[in-house]
Order: sequence, then C-alpha cells, then structure tokens
Amino acid sequence: MRPKPLLSGPQANDLVKKGYLPKKYARLAVKPVITRQQAVNRISSDDIERLFYPVIDTRKTGVDQLKKIRLGQGINAVPGAASGKVVFTAAEAEKMGQKGEKVILVRKETSPEDVGGMHAAKGILTATGGKTSHAAVVARGWGKCCIVGCEALNINYEAKSMTVNGKTVKQGEFITLDGSVGEIYSGDLPLKEPELPKAYYTILKWADQLRTMKVRTNADTPYDAINAIKMGAEGIGLCRTEHMFFDTEERRLAIQEMIVAETLDARKIALAKLLPFQTDDFYGIFKAMNGFPVTIRLIDPPLHEFTPKDNAGVEKLSKITGISVDKIKHRCEQLHESNPMLGHRGCRLCITYPEILDMQVTAIIQAAVKCRKEGVKVLPEIMIPLTMDKKEFKIMEQQTRVVADKLIQQSGVKLPYLVGTMIEIPRAALLADQIAEVAEFFSFGTNDLTQMTLGLSRDDAGRFLPTYVATEKDGGKGIFKDDPFQSLDQDGVGMLVKLGIERGRSTKKDLKVGICGEHGGDAQSIKFCHKAGMNYVSCSPYRVPIARLAAAQAALQDQKK
Amino acid sequence: MRPKPLLSGPQANDLVKKGYLPKKYARLAVKPVITRQQAVNRISSDDIERLFYPVIDTRKTGVDQLKKIRLGQGINAVPGAASGKVVFTAAEAEKMGQKGEKVILVRKETSPEDVGGMHAAKGILTATGGKTSHAAVVARGWGKCCIVGCEALNINYEAKSMTVNGKTVKQGEFITLDGSVGEIYSGDLPLKEPELPKAYYTILKWADQLRTMKVRTNADTPYDAINAIKMGAEGIGLCRTEHMFFDTEERRLAIQEMIVAETLDARKIALAKLLPFQTDDFYGIFKAMNGFPVTIRLIDPPLHEFTPKDNAGVEKLSKITGISVDKIKHRCEQLHESNPMLGHRGCRLCITYPEILDMQVTAIIQAAVKCRKEGVKVLPEIMIPLTMDKKEFKIMEQQTRVVADKLIQQSGVKLPYLVGTMIEIPRAALLADQIAEVAEFFSFGTNDLTQMTLGLSRDDAGRFLPTYVATEKDGGKGIFKDDPFQSLDQDGVGMLVKLGIERGRSTKKDLKVGICGEHGGDAQSIKFCHKAGMNYVSCSPYRVPIARLAAAQAALQDQKK
Repeated sequence: MRPKPLLSGPQANDLVKKGYLPKKYARLAVKPVITRQQAVNRISSDDIERLFYPVIDTRKTGVDQLKKIRLGQGINAVPGAASGKVVFTAAEAEKMGQKGEKVILVRKETSPEDVGGMHAAKGILTATGGKTSHAAVVARGWGKCCIVGCEALNINYEAKSMTVNGKTVKQGEFITLDGSVGEIYSGDLPLKEPELPKAYYTILKWADQLRTMKVRTNADTPYDAINAIKMGAEGIGLCRTEHMFFDTEERRLAIQEMIVAETLDARKIALAKLLPFQTDDFYGIFKAMNGFPVTIRLIDPPLHEFTPKDNAGVEKLSKITGISVDKIKHRCEQLHESNPMLGHRGCRLCITYPEILDMQVTAIIQAAVKCRKEGVKVLPEIMIPLTMDKKEFKIMEQQTRVVADKLIQQSGVKLPYLVGTMIEIPRAALLADQIAEVAEFFSFGTNDLTQMTLGLSRDDAGRFLPTYVATEKDGGKGIFKDDPFQSLDQDGVGMLVKLGIERGRSTKKDLKVGICGEHGGDAQSIKFCHKAGMNYVSCSPYRVPIARLAAAQAALQDQKK
Repeated sequence: MRPKPLLSGPQANDLVKKGYLPKKYARLAVKPVITRQQAVNRISSDDIERLFYPVIDTRKTGVDQLKKIRLGQGINAVPGAASGKVVFTAAEAEKMGQKGEKVILVRKETSPEDVGGMHAAKGILTATGGKTSHAAVVARGWGKCCIVGCEALNINYEAKSMTVNGKTVKQGEFITLDGSVGEIYSGDLPLKEPELPKAYYTILKWADQLRTMKVRTNADTPYDAINAIKMGAEGIGLCRTEHMFFDTEERRLAIQEMIVAETLDARKIALAKLLPFQTDDFYGIFKAMNGFPVTIRLIDPPLHEFTPKDNAGVEKLSKITGISVDKIKHRCEQLHESNPMLGHRGCRLCITYPEILDMQVTAIIQAAVKCRKEGVKVLPEIMIPLTMDKKEFKIMEQQTRVVADKLIQQSGVKLPYLVGTMIEIPRAALLADQIAEVAEFFSFGTNDLTQMTLGLSRDDAGRFLPTYVATEKDGGKGIFKDDPFQSLDQDGVGMLVKLGIERGRSTKKDLKVGICGEHGGDAQSIKFCHKAGMNYVSCSPYRVPIARLAAAQAALQDQKK
C-alpha cells in the first residue's frame, strides 16, 4: 500500500490558499488520497451487505433517546436491526410467531432443539457464545439479526424475565436489536430500509472496471430478472424452471396430472398444458435480460415435491384425471424416497421420462424464437442438472438438439444456443474431461457438490454442523473454519472444482465455466472462483453487488503478484 | 496359455502300457494337463457362487422325470433354484408372501412398481428382457433366483394363467425355476443345499498359495465369525457394532434410554447398561477369530434407526425412564432427517456425544484384555466411520487412545491395537494425505462412497438405475456397464479409491488399506483392489471363497506382465 500522505487533499489545498504552503502542493488537493484500487480493496462484503439490511431509524428515535433506552451490548453476530416481544423459549417463539407476532428469542445459548423457534423469531439474543456459536452460525445462514455473548444479560427462565445492566425486561415486552453493532435497546423502535449512499454506486462502478469475471444472477421470474439487472447482473446463471410449476393452481394441477398419468399419452397431454405457461415465463425472462445470456436448468427436484399434500388436493386431482383417489394416493406413496437428495431427480427424471425434456426445450426455444422475431437478442443456455456420466449427458444433449434444431429450422430465425451441464456430483468433476467433450459449458452447483463431497445434508446438518464450526471457546470443536454451505470448502470441494475445470478444459480449451451455488455470493468463495479460472459467478440478486466487489478484489490480487 | 497336449495324461499312460508309445511319454501321465495357475484362472466366480445356491434335488426328481415336466427355458439371470405358487401381479405376491406362502412372480416384464412383490417372491420369471433387464438387475442384488426373456411364455393377466410351449399353468399352481441354467418346470420340486465337491477345496488351496491380498470378512457376531473362518477368512474387516444393539429387548431399551436421555448423566447411565453386552460380544468375536485381526467400526447409523416404532414401545420406554410419552415422541420426531444417509451419523454422533465412543472403546479393550489374560491373541483395529476431515479424525483418535491406554495400563497386559478410519466420503479420499498423518489404516467403505460419488441413494435407485444399466436392447439406456452397487464403478469411484491410496501412502508409506463394502465380494472389483495396491478385501462370509479365487486371479495377471 502507498504510504498515507500526512495531509489530506482538502487540508493541503486550504494551506496553499492561506499561503502557508507553496503552490505546487495544491496538486495534492485534487489528487485522491487513495487510489481507486485501494478504495475497492478497503471495502468489505460486510460493508456492502450492511447497506441492504434494515437499520434503526434515527430520524424517528434520536441518538440521545437511543442512549437513554440502551440496555447493553453483545457481539454483533449478524447485521441488521429487529424488534419484537421478548420470549425465552423456542416453543413460545414458535407459538407467538404462528399468531403473526414479532418476537425476539432470548436464550443463555441456543441448541439444535431451538432451531424452530429461532426461525420463527425476528431476531436472536444470547448471553453466551461468540461469532461461531450455534446461534450465530444458524442465524447467519438465514441472514437473521443476531447478537450473542451479551455477558451483562441475566435470564430468569422461571420468572420469565431478563435483566441487563440492572434493567429488567419481562416476557412480552418489546426490545430492539441492532445486529450490525451489537446494541440492545428497550422498546419497539421504528426501523427503516436503508438508502444506498452515492459512494456505493461510485465504488461499484470502479469495481466493474477492475474485475475480469462476469457476475450473473440466480433468477426464476421476469420480476427477479429485472431486479437483478438493477443490482448489476450481467445475465442469469441459474433459472430454476420447476418454481414455475408451483406458481398457480392451474400449473400445480397440470404437473400433478403429469405425475399420476398412467400412460405416455396421458403424460404428454398433461405436459402440453404446462407448455404455454413455461413458454410465457421464458419469454418474459428473455425480454427482461435483453441480450444477456440466460442459463435455464431443466427440471431438477424429485417428483414427490409436486404431489398434492392433503386430501382435498388428491380429490381435486382425481376429479380432473378420472384416476381413483386410492390410485393417486398409492402413486404419491410410491414416490417417497429415503434420501431424496440422492434420488430420482435432475436429469434422471428426463432419462426415464424423456417427454419432460421435450416439453421444456420446446418452451425455451419457442420463447427465444418469439423474442428474435421481435428483434430482442436472446442467448439461451440449456443446462442439464445432476449429470454423472458422459453417455448420460450425451443422451440428454442429443435429445435437446433434435427438439431445438427442428423448431429453429421451422421458425426460419437464426438462434444460437448452448447445451451444457451442472457439475454438482463428485463423479462429474472427476470425469470432467469426458463430459466436456460434449458439454459446451459447466456450471458448478456447489450446494449439492458440497452435500455430496462432504456427505452432509444441508437440511439435517443443523444438528451437528454448528459443533463442527464453533470454536472450542464457544463450546464447539473448531473442525471447520467456516460453515461449508456459506463459504466454499476450498480444501475439499474446492479441490474437486479446480480438478473439474482443469480436466474439462483439457478436452475443451475454451469451456465456459461458472458457479451457481450459494457460494457464488460469498466474497471468499468468489475470490477462489477467480483463481480457479471461472468465467462468471452467479448469485441471488441481493448479493450481486457483493460479487461485483469481490470479483474486483480478486482481480486486484492478481495484479499484485 | 500353454497349448493343450494332444493326449491327456491317462490316455498317454495307457498307450505306453500297451507298447504304442516309448516309455519317456509316461511322465505325461503324472503331469497335470493344465497347470494349477491355469486351473485357478479357468474357474469363474459364478462357478463358485453356484456351488452355494440350492439346486433341484435330482436324486428325488430324476432327470427323466425332469424332462417330462419341463415347461421351457429362458435366460439364466440369477443362479439357484426356487419353487412356489405362480402369481401374476406384484400385489398378489406381496399378499401371499405375507401369509407365508412361497410364490414365483411371473410377469411379461417388471418395473419399479413391482419391486415389493419381487422381494416377496421366492423366484422371478419374465417373458422379455435380458441379463440387464429390470428384473435381472433387481433380483441379482438380492441373490434371488431369476429367469428372464422366456420367449415361449405367454401370460393372460385377465384369465390369471400362463402358457409355455402349449402347457398352461394357472395362478396358484406350483412351478420350479432353475436359475443356474434357465430351465422352468411344473410342480413343487424338492431342492437341496449343495455339497461342495473335493475340487472346490483343491482349487481354493491353490488360490490361497497364489494370491497376495488377504481376504477378511464382514461379521458382527461370534457365529458369523466362526462361519467365515470355515469359508477361509483371515480376519474381520468390518464388525458393525450397532447390530448388537438390536439383539434383545433389553439392549434395544438401553440404547433407546440413551437416545431420550435429558442429561449427560442419564445418557452415561444408559450407556453403562450396554457396556457388558458389548464387552461380551467383542469377547466372543475375538475368541472366534483367535489371533486374526478384527476391525471394529464404532456406531454408524443415525439414532432414529433405534427409536421405538410403535406406541407400546414408546410407553415401555416412558415407564423405564420416567420421561413422559409426549416428550419421547417429540424427541423421536426431532430425530427425523430429510436425508439420513447424509445426516447425523458415523463419527458425527461421537463428536456430539463423546460418551458413546467412551463406552464402545471401553467394551473393545475390556474384551481384548480378558482374551489376552486367557492367553488368546487379539489384534483389535478400532475404526472411525464417516470421517471427512483430519481434525475430526484426530479428535476421535485421541479420545480413543485416552480411554484405551488407561484401561490397558490398568490391566497390566500388553495389547497392541490400531486406530484407523473408513474412507467413504469423497472429501476423505481427496484429503487422504492429511488423514493418513493420523490414521493407522484405511478401509474403503465403497457402499457409501458410491452413493456419495454418484449422488445415488442405494435405497431409491431401484426406480431409475435399471434403466441406466439395461442395454438398449433391453429397453434401457446402457449408461453403466454394471450396477455400480454390485461391481465397483472403476472410472469414478475407482478414481477416488486410487487417489485415496496414493495420497494416503504419500504421508504414511506403510498404510494398511482394505475395502469393506459389498464390492469386496465381487470378482471384478477385487481385481481392481489388487491393482490399486490394497492389503486386503473384506466381504460377507459366503463370498469369501469368491474373493480368495479372484485375488489369486489378480495376482496371476501380475505375473503375466
């Protein structure tokens, strides 16, 4: 880093004006004190993140008043502010949460049994623990305001009250937490959604000039897509098509009809009902992205995620399809899986039901053709999920091309498109050289890749993962430095990612590579992706600015070398 | 291969005797026609396997009679014979199976919906399909007699009857299948357990002299251990300790008491009840193995596998523990997992409940010390399951040594023991160099390693894996040459195994390495293990002879090079 000048620009300028300094020093005044690079490097992802969380509205509650109602301070585990009625048990938090009440869960410490109540609460406050304690790790995963290790906090579970620095708060009374600084206040303070300062836009503009990796977003609707573009996204890295099936009752019934269909024809008829919906959705997304690339993942979740969940739903489906209630129930039971994460999902669905792929590819290409005819540029990238083998991928790829090419030819427009794959199964990373012979792009699905590489179900890890992450000081074992679902496990999963990229590019030199797991929005992981040679990261819209900054910082690290 | 002599030994000798040949040719008579190596190489694992399946008792049903009652022939998909009443639907098979009746399920073809009925049947017969059809793949996994592709078979589902070559069999009438040759007979023919021919013992003795890899067995009880030694096992490669918890009601209740315990002390008390049972079991196993190494895996399955499954069970547990029925039910519900395969199991249980490890190590060492005092040689190898990280393993290893060393010191006997780990999570294979700095041995748990590397739940794969394995001729996609749960996926999982061994031995040169998944009993996989440099394979007792033969054949391949 350049040494900091003894005088800031304005100070020097002032002294020149007053005649204390010779004129040549005036140049300092218009020269920035630090370079753009230094500015970009000094901002952390937390700085950016904080801008997007609610804060206490100090226009309504003045700083002086805040001082008066201040109860105490703990460790700022997760930023953002939250207010609610104090409760002391997870069960109470769940009960009141279900009634629609805002609650703050206050505990000496939290444990896996408290997770339900923690989820129901607006904010979490604990007397013990540090930034890797159970409460902190779990709350961070949800982006939920959390203050831990407030040593001045004494809880009397029997009396249902707490005291902080001599002040008592009873269950049901309001408190407000400021997770960004760890401050605790009494009362139900008004919060405000933050406005972005000018400097934010300046810094991110500089970041965009510095970075070499593209930043895309995960978006499933035109609405998300438009939002993400405002945040600076340069394309969609992951469009999950199955969310579209849940959207309205009509769509849900059509997919259910497809699932219970007893013949291929019946299945095709049900899929035909979904076709116009999917076509419309893709059309909206393509238009919103206006020429940016859009990676569309074919259906991924196991079919039982779509089945009716109650009797009324089953009866309705029976009425529409003419299939008996018993048969429908039997079919739904049949779909039950012991380990759905490792079950009949992803491209395995299209291997067994190729007509699903036909419908989805038709919808994508029809929508793209419509855009092209309207003069809108489209770059569809069709992505096969859960690939584990070259031959499996090749079957999917060829089927995709047969459907797509025919439609494009019929339309008479020119429409380039890509067919690529998620890399989310360890075997796919290990055999990436073979798969890249056929695939035009790779997108690392690091959520699933983490689950499989570590043998760790994200849904179930809450029971023990906090013990793995928490330091010994916090009652844990300190086995992992970070939660591997939040920050990429660079030693293990990262080794597979690097290996996958190297092997993939060994057979296809210019293979386009990105990431579309949650890690695509984590600064540390983004820097890893840059080093590993990825072309882009993709993350949820609200993390796009963090990704833009981190990508720039990663590029700056290269320059230092 | 050496050219086969034109005359066999006895023939040559006869000609010498008769004066047709000069005397020097008489040596041929005592020289074997093929070498021992050639003999060992000519036997296939199917030849050995067939010896252990029931066959039609031709002493009771003469060959002439068999010809008369012969219905027809199909493709011999899974060996062994089976007889039972003919049924034509999976539902019927399940219903009759539950009543304790022997049935043969006869279908044009089978599909995933039939799996329940296939399991209930004694044998399976289909009109279509080949050795990789759904019926064949599923039945092979269970070692269940199966004939497929019987083209002469016509089924009339409505009339509930079938005809084969003009002969009609109605539902409920008996047929007998000979899966080894694909023959179908009418009637309920008596079967016999085969006797092993002399040649079997000779060939296996030769195999033992040729092979360099040891063959161990997976055994959980002294009974299994004794059986396995008779089959030629040279130690136990996997002793699953949790099976001991299911053995009697007393044990089940003790483990349940441990699970619902509300305090550490209550948990320790429940574990103390299990200690004498486990000590006795280990003592029996050590004695049975009389100096052979015994690898004992600490508790592996998720706790919900042990919880009471009905109200009576919950009430009994409530009575014993004084914990309310509601609380017990709540605790059992809490233990439910979305993906138990990737959940709170393996060493993750001992990371969160270290007292379970203390109890199990105490039982192992107490039993070993008792044996030593009686002059019985013991070689305990304590194995940590589901390791994914060096630090995690080190915590387990150190805790094991603290408990074990104290007990050994107190006992005054000399008792060497090893502490090692399963390698069954991809991350452990990737970071094997780090883990081997602490672990004294690796045992590849290729069942789980396959599930995680391929993202494939063994319990759920029945719905789509047959389509992956079946050739296009059989209506499948031919993506995999073999079912990866039966024969090791050498491209993917095998790459991780080789990498794990190389990296492990890069930091611990003489690291002992074995395999304890089902693949340890599959000839192709065993040959792979030999090439990969493993010290031993471990398999279920009845596959030990197959492993001995395959290991010898693998060693012979080395000599050829």
